[in-house]
Amino acid sequence: MSDLPQRIDVQEEGPREGFQFEKGPISTERKIELIDALSETGLGEIQVGSYVNPKRVPGWADVENVVSGIARREGVRYTALWLNERGLERALAAEGLFLKGSIGTSASETFMKLNQNRGYADNEKVQHNQIALYKEHGITYFRGSMMAAFGCNFEGDVPIAKVIEQAESIRRIADENDVKVDILSLADTMAWATPESVKQVVGAVRDRWPDWRITLHLHDTRGLGVANAYAGLQMGVDSFDSSVAGLGGCPFAGHKGAAGNVCTEDLVFMCQEMGIDTGIDLEALLDAARLAEDVVGHDLPGSVKRGGSLNTLRKKLH
Amino acid sequence: MSDLPQRIDVQEEGPREGFQFEKGPISTERKIELIDALSETGLGEIQVGSYVNPKRVPGWADVENVVSGIARREGVRYTALWLNERGLERALAAEGLFLKGSIGTSASETFMKLNQNRGYADNEKVQHNQIALYKEHGITYFRGSMMAAFGCNFEGDVPIAKVIEQAESIRRIADENDVKVDILSLADTMAWATPESVKQVVGAVRDRWPDWRITLHLHDTRGLGVANAYAGLQMGVDSFDSSVAGLGGCPFAGHKGAAGNVCTEDLVFMCQEMGIDTGIDLEALLDAARLAEDVVGHDLPGSVKRGGSLNTLRKKLH
Repeated sequence: MSDLPQRIDVQEEGPREGFQFEKGPISTERKIELIDALSETGLGEIQVGSYVNPKRVPGWADVENVVSGIARREGVRYTALWLNERGLERALAAEGLFLKGSIGTSASETFMKLNQNRGYADNEKVQHNQIALYKEHGITYFRGSMMAAFGCNFEGDVPIAKVIEQAESIRRIADENDVKVDILSLADTMAWATPESVKQVVGAVRDRWPDWRITLHLHDTRGLGVANAYAGLQMGVDSFDSSVAGLGGCPFAGHKGAAGNVCTEDLVFMCQEMGIDTGIDLEALLDAARLAEDVVGHDLPGSVKRGGSLNTLRKKLH
Repeated sequence: MSDLPQRIDVQEEGPREGFQFEKGPISTERKIELIDALSETGLGEIQVGSYVNPKRVPGWADVENVVSGIARREGVRYTALWLNERGLERALAAEGLFLKGSIGTSASETFMKLNQNRGYADNEKVQHNQIALYKEHGITYFRGSMMAAFGCNFEGDVPIAKVIEQAESIRRIADENDVKVDILSLADTMAWATPESVKQVVGAVRDRWPDWRITLHLHDTRGLGVANAYAGLQMGVDSFDSSVAGLGGCPFAGHKGAAGNVCTEDLVFMCQEMGIDTGIDLEALLDAARLAEDVVGHDLPGSVKRGGSLNTLRKKLH
C-alpha cells in the first residue's frame, strides 16, 4: 500500500520551545512536573531546556534547576539546546544530558543573517570551531541542521538546489573535521512547506544520499504540519521533532502568528491509527498535553486532547 | 510527481454548519453579511441555510429571511439542507436555490438509528419516497451521501466492505427510480479517518466504479482533516466540503470535542501552494474567515487566517 516506515522516533521539543515562548512566569516545579509526565509516556527523547542568555530568554533562566530537578527515566534521552560556547559549557556541567553535536546552516542566508547575525562564510568558521569544541568534550553524535529548508519569510521560496548545496556544505564541514553526521534535520522554520514540497525536498536529498537519515522539524503556522508529516512518512522519513499540545512558537519568524511545532499527540495519534509504532502511550501523552495547558494557563492548539483518542472509544464499545 | 487533480471544487458549508452549531444569538443581518462576503471569494458553491425544525435548531429559525436576504452572485450555486418533506417544501419556496436531490445512508446502521431513528430497511423506503418527491419537483441532480464512511463512535471501525455495500445500495435505489447519482459523498462524520484509510476507502470505491465522482466531507475533530484531504487529492478526489474558519461541529457525534469540517481557507491555501486551482481568491477568503470570527464572537480554529498566506509575504519581497 505504501512506503510508510514501521516505526518512527519522536523528539519532543515542547518544554524547550514552550517555556522559551510563553510569557509566564512558570515555576521551576511546574516545568519539572510537565517533563516528568512526558518521561512516563514512552517518548524516547525530550529536549528539556535551553542554555541561553537569561536576559534574552527569561523563561529559561532556571534551566540548571529544571535539568537537575527532573526524574531521569531509563531509556529516555534528555537533550538541551545551546547557541554558543558558553551555553555548551553550562550544558556540559549538567548531569545526565545527552549532548548532540550540531552542524548548523540555513537554506536562506538572509534568515541566518537576521537570526544569527552571520552569513555563510562566517557560519562555516563558527561550525568548525564548534566541532573542535564538541570533539574536545567527547561528543560523537552529530546532527546536521538546516533551517528554512522549505522557504523563508525574508527570502521567499527556497530552490531545492539551495537545500542540496547547504546539505553538501554540512557534509563537507563534517568531512574536514573527520566527524560523521548521523542525521540531517530539515526544518520548516517559517511554515512554508506543503506536502508536495516535503516530498520534493526529501526526495532530492534522498536521491543524492540514499543512506543519510532525515528528520523533519515542521512548524504548524499554516495548519499543514500534520499533512506535511504524513508526506514525510510517505517518503520513508522515520524521525520527527514535535511539541506536546503544540506548545511553542518561533519568536524569530517575523510575525506573531507563528505557531509551534507539529503537535506530538496529533502526530502520534495519526501514526498509531496507521499502524506505525511510536513506542508512545497515547493516553499518557494526552494526559501530559492537558497538563501542558494547565501549566501554561491557557488553551493550546492540539486537537486529539479535545477530540479524544479512538482507542478510548473502541474500548468503550467492547 | 503525483496524481493530484489540476482543479478542485469546494462546497462551503460553514454558514449552514456554523449557525446551526453556535449558541448565538446571531442576527439575520450578520449571517447575510458573512454569506455575502463568501459570495465574493470565488467559491462555486455555498450552503446557505438549513430548513429544519426551529425548535430543535433555533440558529436556523430565520432561514427564510437569510436566504431571501443574500445578494446572489452569478456563477455561485446556493444550496441548502433539509431533513424531511416539510423542509424540502420550504426550500422549494425559496428563490434562487440550487436544490440537490440526495440518496442518503450511513456505513454504520447504529449511527443511523441514533441519528435518524431508522435502520437500513426503513431508510430505503424513506429514500424511495424522497426521490419520488424530488422528481415531482423537477430536481435532477443527485448526490449519494454516506455518513460514517470511515468509522463510528457507536459501532467502531467500519469495514471497507460495508462502504461498498452501502454504495451499492445507493446505486440500486437510484436505478430502481431511474435516476443517476452524479456524485458520491463519503463523510467522515465522526473523524475516524486517517490519510491511509482515506486512500483505502476511496481506492476501493474507485476500483469498483471508476467513473463515479467522489466528494469528501472530513471533520477535523482529531486534527487530521487537512492531511486526510491531501490523501484524497493524492487519490484524484477533486471535490471537498469544507467550512470557512473551521466553523461548526457535529452535535450528533456523541461528544462535545467534535470539531467542524476541514477549514476552507487552510484547504485552499494548501491547494494553491501545490498548484491546484480552486477558483478562489485566498485573500478574500481569509477576510471572510476573520469576519466569521467577528460574527460568532470568538476565535475559530483555522490556521492560515492567523499565520497569513505566503503570497502576501511573496508580494512584500518583490
